[in-house]
Amino acid sequence: MENEASSEQPIGVFDSGVGGLTVLKAIRERLPDEHLVYLGDTARLPYGTKSPASVLRYAMQATAHLRSRGVKMLVIACNTASAVALDDLQRALAPLPVIGVVEPGARAAIAARPAARHLVLATEATVRLGAYGKAIRRLDPQASVRELACELMVAQAEEGWTSGDIATAIVREYLRPMITGSGAYQPESLILGCTHFPILGDAIRSVVSPQVSITDSAGTTAAVVASELLARGLNRTPAEPARLQLLATDGATRFARVGGTFLGEQLAAGDIELVDL
Amino acid sequence: MENEASSEQPIGVFDSGVGGLTVLKAIRERLPDEHLVYLGDTARLPYGTKSPASVLRYAMQATAHLRSRGVKMLVIACNTASAVALDDLQRALAPLPVIGVVEPGARAAIAARPAARHLVLATEATVRLGAYGKAIRRLDPQASVRELACELMVAQAEEGWTSGDIATAIVREYLRPMITGSGAYQPESLILGCTHFPILGDAIRSVVSPQVSITDSAGTTAAVVASELLARGLNRTPAEPARLQLLATDGATRFARVGGTFLGEQLAAGDIELVDL
Repeated sequence: MENEASSEQPIGVFDSGVGGLTVLKAIRERLPDEHLVYLGDTARLPYGTKSPASVLRYAMQATAHLRSRGVKMLVIACNTASAVALDDLQRALAPLPVIGVVEPGARAAIAARPAARHLVLATEATVRLGAYGKAIRRLDPQASVRELACELMVAQAEEGWTSGDIATAIVREYLRPMITGSGAYQPESLILGCTHFPILGDAIRSVVSPQVSITDSAGTTAAVVASELLARGLNRTPAEPARLQLLATDGATRFARVGGTFLGEQLAAGDIELVDL
Repeated sequence: MENEASSEQPIGVFDSGVGGLTVLKAIRERLPDEHLVYLGDTARLPYGTKSPASVLRYAMQATAHLRSRGVKMLVIACNTASAVALDDLQRALAPLPVIGVVEPGARAAIAARPAARHLVLATEATVRLGAYGKAIRRLDPQASVRELACELMVAQAEEGWTSGDIATAIVREYLRPMITGSGAYQPESLILGCTHFPILGDAIRSVVSPQVSITDSAGTTAAVVASELLARGLNRTPAEPARLQLLATDGATRFARVGGTFLGEQLAAGDIELVDL
């Protein structure tokens, strides 16, 4: 009975803004029967340029709010928050299962290309913490890893400049030192270590050779969520259709406009509930 | 005696982050004997994509902190905060003089080019409020005004991409619809309605005709500060050198690195005092 009751609870998905909607989308495709509640901390985004102490404090407040909504599992769909705060959040919220995006992303990249040269594209904060590097080297000691901060690509994704000359030019500006010239790192694998970057996939693809694998965390994180639910007997048995709740800490209109691009469907400001943390 | 005492107090300068340092720099050049205390709300930047209610709340907290430091005058060196909150701040902090950057910027643009077609480059929030449009039309009913949100240019300035092909390409992408094609607005005057944009001056200059005037608020705001001090008898008579205090709500290292570009001098993380609002 207890499992039946809790399997009806939603999965909570947390991000600093709208980028995590790429992860939400993957979870929804993989687990269409699950109730989902997404919280974007749009009042304080971006996390990628903030200090670890601030990111940890914000993540604690946001996840406390999601817990108050009775979630059965929590996904930290933000690379920066995963890199900074996953261990602390797992401790603070235990026994609630808390899943981040860094380790699933690292696993996916290694599966696609073992013992390879990986290049992680991420925010300043994620790069500073070297979370992907640690995860990859632990899982695949043969691999090499570099991490590259690409702050402007976050704004670019939010602005919807996802294709065309200018989109490609911005991506190329960041990648050029890694792929051009003798002695360049020449990655065999790119890891999109920021949830904003999957929507720039075409632009990123166009500036690297076709042999380079490109991995993001969304699909693998969704797979981890699915297997964790199964392991805990928490899969929902649908009686009525699954619900999706979207919460934000600021700017419902902007969330709807920009978030629609990430979620891959039209959103209206009225679809977003504003919350105070 | 009272005026002598208060003339020793610092001028407070507030911004959402480091962009306002372009205004601080102009004030320091114009008034080298004044003590200055600058507060950048880096924990919650950018303001340009936040809702007016959030921007107002943040600005109230930040200015309350500056008042607690005993400032004799307050400069809102952030276009978004000036557009959203100037009236409320003036009321809340009276009789402390509070000066924004929108009206000085509008005056400077009109002085440079009366009865002209102005184009304001600004953040989403500033554009949505139409603050420059209102100020210009009130001061020069012959003028016409359009406002253009250029969010990515904020990140571009913070990233230090101030010149070169990519810098020009981003600026051109925003300006193209306004300057190319029959029926384009063809502005005669550009107003840099975000304190980040002066450091992109060369890139902006390179994509418009030499006849277009380009105005920012920094110099004019400094002139308004100077005349207000004079009118109130609050000019400092230097006994010892002027002090500059830099405060931020997060990320001293990043503030020092990025802020140095805006202030035009090297900064170290130790120069920045972190404060909680």
